[in-house]
Amino acid sequence: MEKRIKEALIEIVGAENFTDKIIDLVTYSYDASESWGRPDCALWATSAEQVSRILTLANRERIPVVPRGAGTGLSGLAVPINGGIVLDLVRMNKILSVCVPDRLAVVQPGVVYADFQAALEPHGFFFPPDPASAKVCTLGGNVATNAGGLRAAKYGTTRDYVLGLEVVLADGDMMRTGARTMKCSSGYDITRLMVGSEGTLGVVTEIIFKISPLPSEVATATATFDRLEDAGNAVTLIMHSGVVPSVLELLDANTVAMFRKYSDLQLPAVEAMVLVETDGYTKEEVNYQLDRVVKVFQKCNAGDVHRAKSKAEAERLWLARKSIGGLVGMVTPNRSSEDVAVPMSRIVDFLRGVEKISKKYDLLILNFGHAGDGNLHPNIMYDRSDPDQVARLEPLLFDLHKLACDLGGTLTGEHGIGITKAKYMTLEHDPVALRVMRSLKKALDPNDILNPGKMALEA
Amino acid sequence: MEKRIKEALIEIVGAENFTDKIIDLVTYSYDASESWGRPDCALWATSAEQVSRILTLANRERIPVVPRGAGTGLSGLAVPINGGIVLDLVRMNKILSVCVPDRLAVVQPGVVYADFQAALEPHGFFFPPDPASAKVCTLGGNVATNAGGLRAAKYGTTRDYVLGLEVVLADGDMMRTGARTMKCSSGYDITRLMVGSEGTLGVVTEIIFKISPLPSEVATATATFDRLEDAGNAVTLIMHSGVVPSVLELLDANTVAMFRKYSDLQLPAVEAMVLVETDGYTKEEVNYQLDRVVKVFQKCNAGDVHRAKSKAEAERLWLARKSIGGLVGMVTPNRSSEDVAVPMSRIVDFLRGVEKISKKYDLLILNFGHAGDGNLHPNIMYDRSDPDQVARLEPLLFDLHKLACDLGGTLTGEHGIGITKAKYMTLEHDPVALRVMRSLKKALDPNDILNPGKMALEA
Repeated sequence: MEKRIKEALIEIVGAENFTDKIIDLVTYSYDASESWGRPDCALWATSAEQVSRILTLANRERIPVVPRGAGTGLSGLAVPINGGIVLDLVRMNKILSVCVPDRLAVVQPGVVYADFQAALEPHGFFFPPDPASAKVCTLGGNVATNAGGLRAAKYGTTRDYVLGLEVVLADGDMMRTGARTMKCSSGYDITRLMVGSEGTLGVVTEIIFKISPLPSEVATATATFDRLEDAGNAVTLIMHSGVVPSVLELLDANTVAMFRKYSDLQLPAVEAMVLVETDGYTKEEVNYQLDRVVKVFQKCNAGDVHRAKSKAEAERLWLARKSIGGLVGMVTPNRSSEDVAVPMSRIVDFLRGVEKISKKYDLLILNFGHAGDGNLHPNIMYDRSDPDQVARLEPLLFDLHKLACDLGGTLTGEHGIGITKAKYMTLEHDPVALRVMRSLKKALDPNDILNPGKMALEA
Repeated sequence: MEKRIKEALIEIVGAENFTDKIIDLVTYSYDASESWGRPDCALWATSAEQVSRILTLANRERIPVVPRGAGTGLSGLAVPINGGIVLDLVRMNKILSVCVPDRLAVVQPGVVYADFQAALEPHGFFFPPDPASAKVCTLGGNVATNAGGLRAAKYGTTRDYVLGLEVVLADGDMMRTGARTMKCSSGYDITRLMVGSEGTLGVVTEIIFKISPLPSEVATATATFDRLEDAGNAVTLIMHSGVVPSVLELLDANTVAMFRKYSDLQLPAVEAMVLVETDGYTKEEVNYQLDRVVKVFQKCNAGDVHRAKSKAEAERLWLARKSIGGLVGMVTPNRSSEDVAVPMSRIVDFLRGVEKISKKYDLLILNFGHAGDGNLHPNIMYDRSDPDQVARLEPLLFDLHKLACDLGGTLTGEHGIGITKAKYMTLEHDPVALRVMRSLKKALDPNDILNPGKMALEA
């Protein structure tokens, strides 16, 4: 990095908020994906004005800028594959206001999801998306990926909660989008264009989130199914029942087998296990919903059906779902954690297809995810030190994403495209839609300085 | 219109789907707003392919194209102020599929909202936005304006239900956006960029809507308040209570006075009347919610509180809200029906401000609307045959929209910008945001043929 540019950046953020030390740059070379790329420097911005000055400079000098939160992204969004500046926003971590009468909160992008939840709780409110990385991920990252989680079937994803933004554009200009109102039909919805744009259209420096009352009651149950098809039928019949569970998770045979092998959870050898939670204002209501779901389970030949009678018992039922992340590390040294979504009625077709892919490439695939919204997380288990296995991974991933798209699904339910899925974009999007995305990028970032190389936006 | 162009258009849609008869063109010169502009011809397209061929021709010949549904828009969206082609989509009125297991339905843009509801009902599902014009408006129009309605506080607006679109772009190219899945983080969200873009970015030829289970139980109550401030406090305390009513409507003093004068509804002379509905799965649940709301009413010095004990009684309570549209015609020959939204905590400030504006310009203003989401519909009552009144209307409307924006609100909660609000865009949006909107328009419709003159998109 040229000395004059380094000096100009230090002048903007202060020496304490600039680094080009190799040890720091290595740290900023990766995120939670397996992608890698070293930046020329990293900055901690502490205000929108600083972000504006940084982008003005970077745009003039054609230097890539990669915005970054906690780096928990699984698609390589925060990896500076073209070098340049990593713009770390974690020091912009203030919750600016929680306004219950207006049903909103205003935050900076570096606020950690869990800290935001903790600030909302005393008001009896919450921010529903609930990504698995909630304890560490930042809200700016949630916006960048349109993050979702376990409760999306009932509550939607980040997109459904962003009312407005403050954004710094590629040329350093700042704008406000959206409104502090629940309804707004004024002008183009550039708020939601920014949500999920992975830092390629602007840097978000402030977010107005709609917040929701925290349901006071929940009811929890699990069911096992000898046959995957029965679990699939159950999901379909739950939809027909008119109940929208707040959680409807599915664990496949391989995931159940992992528990049987590596944990002391007493699970039977089944093809599927389903975890369901209903929530609401009253016990009657959550039990009414759970009754209907359990009836569906029984109608669909469920084996063990456990219904939690206490909070402690509910936590035990949750244990399997919540232990997956920790346990997979015992199966193989490495895993590729994927994130496709399919129409709910195609979940079984997808999982049967994955079985075939797994056999074809001789790599174990665990499947678990959010059956209530069709979002599944195939985890391909492998050993990176074995070149043979590594060579099989790439074509396996192509087949996997093609399968999801062929079933009317999408490449990513909640992780984003980033680098890792960019090569599959043509499987899902037609050439005209891709051209439109590229023309939007060109309109807002003509010099391609914002997070370049992501989302297949190069012509 | 040149003969060769007329012939080319007839060649595309057939003579039976083309008109340039003066009586038809007059009919296509207006919508439900007070705007006016005569087209050169009108076409009824019956397929996306036809729309594509029409736009290809129009783009080549630089002819304005104004997409149109039922023409119920209140902001002049469907008025061809620059002449050209009115592209009527009401003959594309098929419900292509209702897929409950996938929680979605696929429709053409010309389907009438009520027909869609009727098709969903046997499945126990509904499409929640519920605009006041539900009986006649089309779903394409709902998408174009991001239509909302009475239940937006709990259920959101059209934007929250559009999963994907088929869109014909200005140059005739067709694309598919979004997905058939509940979650999608794949590429830019061009679906939601299209929603609310008022036919200026593309012509929607197919819509994938998320659908929701129809709640089986509702509970209804009304309350009157001698002082507007007490009603405002009630709205604030309801938010704090953690209950999100499915309906929370407010009628102001002038609206109540109208009922006292022109109807036989026995309403007291109060400053505000509030109508609330809670919904859910069980009687306990809806009553639990309503109990909390009624407690808030009583704490806030409500006068008469009526709680419906039967469906018939609930319908009686709804009577006032539902009769407004029919009754206002008795007050003055004309009215300007507005649609601002403010943060919920500013509703009282807004209504008190409107009182001052009403006095300043000596024109009666009735206020009613959706207190649960801050969306209010000031109706300015006037007589178009009185030039004095007409002269006062314009500056009054400016003050009204400025007031909403000064209070942190928006120009339009659910009607859209169209022609009538285009001149106020700078009150709400900063110059950078406006520049971004214009650059998006330029990127997708460089020749400005799609619904030109709307939304202040001219540089």
